[in-house]
Amino acid sequence: MKVVIIGGVAGGATAAARLRRLDENAQIIVLERSGYVSYANCGLPYYIGGTIQNEKALTLQTPESFKRRFNVDVRVQNEVLAIRPEQKSVTVRRLSDGTTYEESYDKLILSPGAKPVRPNLPGINHERIFTLRSVEDTFRIHRFVEENAPKRAVVVGGGFIGLEMAENLTHLGLSVTVVERLNQVMSPIDYDMACGVHAYLKDKGVSLFLGSSVEGFEPADDGLRTILDKGRTLTSDMVILAIGVTPETHLAKEAGLRLGQRGSIAVNDRMETSIPDIYAVGDAVEVRHFVTGSETLIPLAGPANKQGRIAADNICGRDSRYKGSQGSSVLKLFDMTVAATGINEDAAKKAGIEYDKVITFTASHATYYPGASNMTVKTLFDPQSGKVLGAQIVGFEGVDKRIDVLATAIRAGMTVYDLEELELSYAPPYSSAKDPVNMAGFAAVNVLDGTVKQYHWHDVPALPKDGSVTLLDTRTDEEYARGHIDGTLHIPVDVLREHLSELDPSKPVYVNCQSGLRSYIACRILSGHGYDCYNLSGGWRFYDLVKQNGGFDTAPAHPCGLAIEK
Amino acid sequence: MKVVIIGGVAGGATAAARLRRLDENAQIIVLERSGYVSYANCGLPYYIGGTIQNEKALTLQTPESFKRRFNVDVRVQNEVLAIRPEQKSVTVRRLSDGTTYEESYDKLILSPGAKPVRPNLPGINHERIFTLRSVEDTFRIHRFVEENAPKRAVVVGGGFIGLEMAENLTHLGLSVTVVERLNQVMSPIDYDMACGVHAYLKDKGVSLFLGSSVEGFEPADDGLRTILDKGRTLTSDMVILAIGVTPETHLAKEAGLRLGQRGSIAVNDRMETSIPDIYAVGDAVEVRHFVTGSETLIPLAGPANKQGRIAADNICGRDSRYKGSQGSSVLKLFDMTVAATGINEDAAKKAGIEYDKVITFTASHATYYPGASNMTVKTLFDPQSGKVLGAQIVGFEGVDKRIDVLATAIRAGMTVYDLEELELSYAPPYSSAKDPVNMAGFAAVNVLDGTVKQYHWHDVPALPKDGSVTLLDTRTDEEYARGHIDGTLHIPVDVLREHLSELDPSKPVYVNCQSGLRSYIACRILSGHGYDCYNLSGGWRFYDLVKQNGGFDTAPAHPCGLAIEK
Repeated sequence: MKVVIIGGVAGGATAAARLRRLDENAQIIVLERSGYVSYANCGLPYYIGGTIQNEKALTLQTPESFKRRFNVDVRVQNEVLAIRPEQKSVTVRRLSDGTTYEESYDKLILSPGAKPVRPNLPGINHERIFTLRSVEDTFRIHRFVEENAPKRAVVVGGGFIGLEMAENLTHLGLSVTVVERLNQVMSPIDYDMACGVHAYLKDKGVSLFLGSSVEGFEPADDGLRTILDKGRTLTSDMVILAIGVTPETHLAKEAGLRLGQRGSIAVNDRMETSIPDIYAVGDAVEVRHFVTGSETLIPLAGPANKQGRIAADNICGRDSRYKGSQGSSVLKLFDMTVAATGINEDAAKKAGIEYDKVITFTASHATYYPGASNMTVKTLFDPQSGKVLGAQIVGFEGVDKRIDVLATAIRAGMTVYDLEELELSYAPPYSSAKDPVNMAGFAAVNVLDGTVKQYHWHDVPALPKDGSVTLLDTRTDEEYARGHIDGTLHIPVDVLREHLSELDPSKPVYVNCQSGLRSYIACRILSGHGYDCYNLSGGWRFYDLVKQNGGFDTAPAHPCGLAIEK
Repeated sequence: MKVVIIGGVAGGATAAARLRRLDENAQIIVLERSGYVSYANCGLPYYIGGTIQNEKALTLQTPESFKRRFNVDVRVQNEVLAIRPEQKSVTVRRLSDGTTYEESYDKLILSPGAKPVRPNLPGINHERIFTLRSVEDTFRIHRFVEENAPKRAVVVGGGFIGLEMAENLTHLGLSVTVVERLNQVMSPIDYDMACGVHAYLKDKGVSLFLGSSVEGFEPADDGLRTILDKGRTLTSDMVILAIGVTPETHLAKEAGLRLGQRGSIAVNDRMETSIPDIYAVGDAVEVRHFVTGSETLIPLAGPANKQGRIAADNICGRDSRYKGSQGSSVLKLFDMTVAATGINEDAAKKAGIEYDKVITFTASHATYYPGASNMTVKTLFDPQSGKVLGAQIVGFEGVDKRIDVLATAIRAGMTVYDLEELELSYAPPYSSAKDPVNMAGFAAVNVLDGTVKQYHWHDVPALPKDGSVTLLDTRTDEEYARGHIDGTLHIPVDVLREHLSELDPSKPVYVNCQSGLRSYIACRILSGHGYDCYNLSGGWRFYDLVKQNGGFDTAPAHPCGLAIEK
């Protein structure tokens, strides 16, 4: 059997190694356009920033090492020009000398990946504008920084690559401005969760232009000018373009393979394309979303690796199925961790999936043990069954742990009742006896079973101001003095029982505290005395975070209060 | 409704708070024998070691704060002398003045906890011998250390408290010797996994006497002499006795409640005892093991808290069930993390549960990103269905994350096939595209579906030495030179294909590498050429770790090579 693999990173490299392990006799050829195989794609920003210092660390595998260990014929700088399904062959160009050749196959795996979007804007080809995908791109940016010692960078796009580059360029001493077309960074998380990231970026000295489109670039005496909508400009020494990726599928399209949305390659759950003996894996393929069941694009390394393994299994006569992607992802941003799994509110709305949500703010480990920090956990669940639909966490220590527990729970089809019961490992340096995931479960079940009714930050502006409802803040005097929702009555929870007479029992009470825990207790006290009451999910802290770092008008064109023009 | 709770830590305090949240009008009384309520039980060793500096941090809740927030009547230094189920009352002694009183109840919750085992040995009451359970115990040890500046400590018992005390006393500059009756520390993990902990303790300067029983204590001119079996003695300035805990259930027994094993309190899944209106929770109760289904004792804070909540729910008319404990636990030991969930080999054997196992040794995060360290993961699974039965991990960064993912998988009834597919969050600082949990799944499925056959460290001594089998080491020359299994042929995996002629195809081949990954690839090469071959699970590293830090004779009385007599 002869297997040809187009693309030698994540999915392609995994498929090659698995194929060999399953079939010692197969002929396996990997055709890779770039000069590198199986490179550390996700590590590239960290080489630029200097966290990864040895460039060899980025390319642990070489064609030679792959040959030695796996007897795989890896041909770098070999670009496939065309697939000929009827002949079962591909046309390949050697980039070294421009010559071409035909390579036949019995089975073909496409792992072409996705390429950075590069819109056709005026000035887009300026030499100081970079995208980041390959090792070559990385060295290009690295060399530019070394030779030109830039002081200012504009990063266009506030997704994974954009923010990782913002961090790494900041580490290098550059002053960084991130420009994002939407009103938030990091689309895997919702707007309200992103507001915490906005605040943190500002804290780290990164300027943020939200709701701002780039209209073009032009050279200037003192650098490169990035022209934004509404006539604003940003002058910098370099620009990183990181506005997303698009599946690289011109070969698949020209070969007549059935395509999915946004030009992706359509595959079945065995990773087979519409043409026999051609498989496709990785960022270029359309996958089924594990939670919504709809077809979608989820360009992540974990799924790509799993798909490569599955394609290899099927080629070798096994029956292996890909059950869908759930978008588990995590970003390190300076000391912060931003993570998500399953669907967020935007995705739920688009898919027409009914949901409810809770925001919890819980300590990474026992607060009496040094070093604990709180994390904001947003959990989406089915309002009937309680099934967990998605989770997002913004915080520091232990965020990655909790998102992985929640990712596992989603994969298992668990409900928020199950989250309550999860027996996670506890010792003071690692967690609390009630883990943040348990706490999310408790909060959600309290909502589901009617123990507490809740309201959200976005409900606050709409609360009647005619005196028909009571707003109650149950925090301490010190906390209240530092800021509160306008018009709130202030009674600390610990003296609430003695001050009940100050609350009109005929009016609904909208209660808040700092994080939502004390106000939940206050709600239970009030309920016990017959009041109709509501708990502010996430508390004043979350409300204020949104107010200060995004605002309550969540229309995409809203210019964020953080935008600092230069 | 009047609820009396005996015991105001973990389970009792949780029950009290939950009761109040569910019933604003209930009368709730907590009777606590010690002087403190809801204290940081698991944090006590860290106050002694100085990691937690503020003693107030240990006692965040006070009777007054509990009263203010939850309107709960907490009476510390109130010891219950007897329960009178027929009168529905308890007899209480005020420890301040010795007076007694009767307190009636509608519902009673027992949360008495467990007390340190204190065997009746000669000299056991010496003032330099301490146990650690309460805040008072903690202050006593803390004061002793401050006033006497001890230089040498003997810790009897190598479980959680014993090793946490060993670490904390080492931090204080003491020379610490741990004495353990078994041939291993940390019984939640198996002997072979514990050998890695033995090595680490040695590395940290902690002396270890395994397979050694304490027969008594006697004063000496230069301190306190601990007398071990076989005539050995250890002289030190203080002794910590941490040989386990026993349920504190004399009240329950005298009241005629049905008891479980080792004097524990028998309860049903609603946490009801055998007498109506009396509930019991926490370390004193017998629970069903989630994996084996048998009754057992699992004294851990997480389960205690959940049980307290469940008892409160049921008292308030809800129907809430405890589905069992799975023994998820974690220990910080200097920079090491030791964690377990589900059952280990010992427990599986005792329960008569068939299992298979894989040992994997995988990086905490992408190796090209700084700071990654490997962890040893032992996964037990059902050899037919592949259902995950238990997991143990010894390592550093990210161990707690993976055990929690595995704990969630076990709770969900997942199989090792599911572990393969788990979509966990990946970015280089946090994980690899194939997470250690995925890797454990891959390794287990390879065994289950026959892709590879394996052997274990304990099989090595039994391999025939008559030349009827081939032992093959596939590591590099440098690795092989540092140590190898006697009698192995040495062919690095990367040149194996060219050297196949050196291997007799009629003989089974027992292959090893450092961790088991390269030898797996070698096995696949050999299988492809018709060889019958076996992969050493965990590799030479794991084999050698056991050999050097415990030995192959695993009978409990085996004196460990680490024992350094003083």
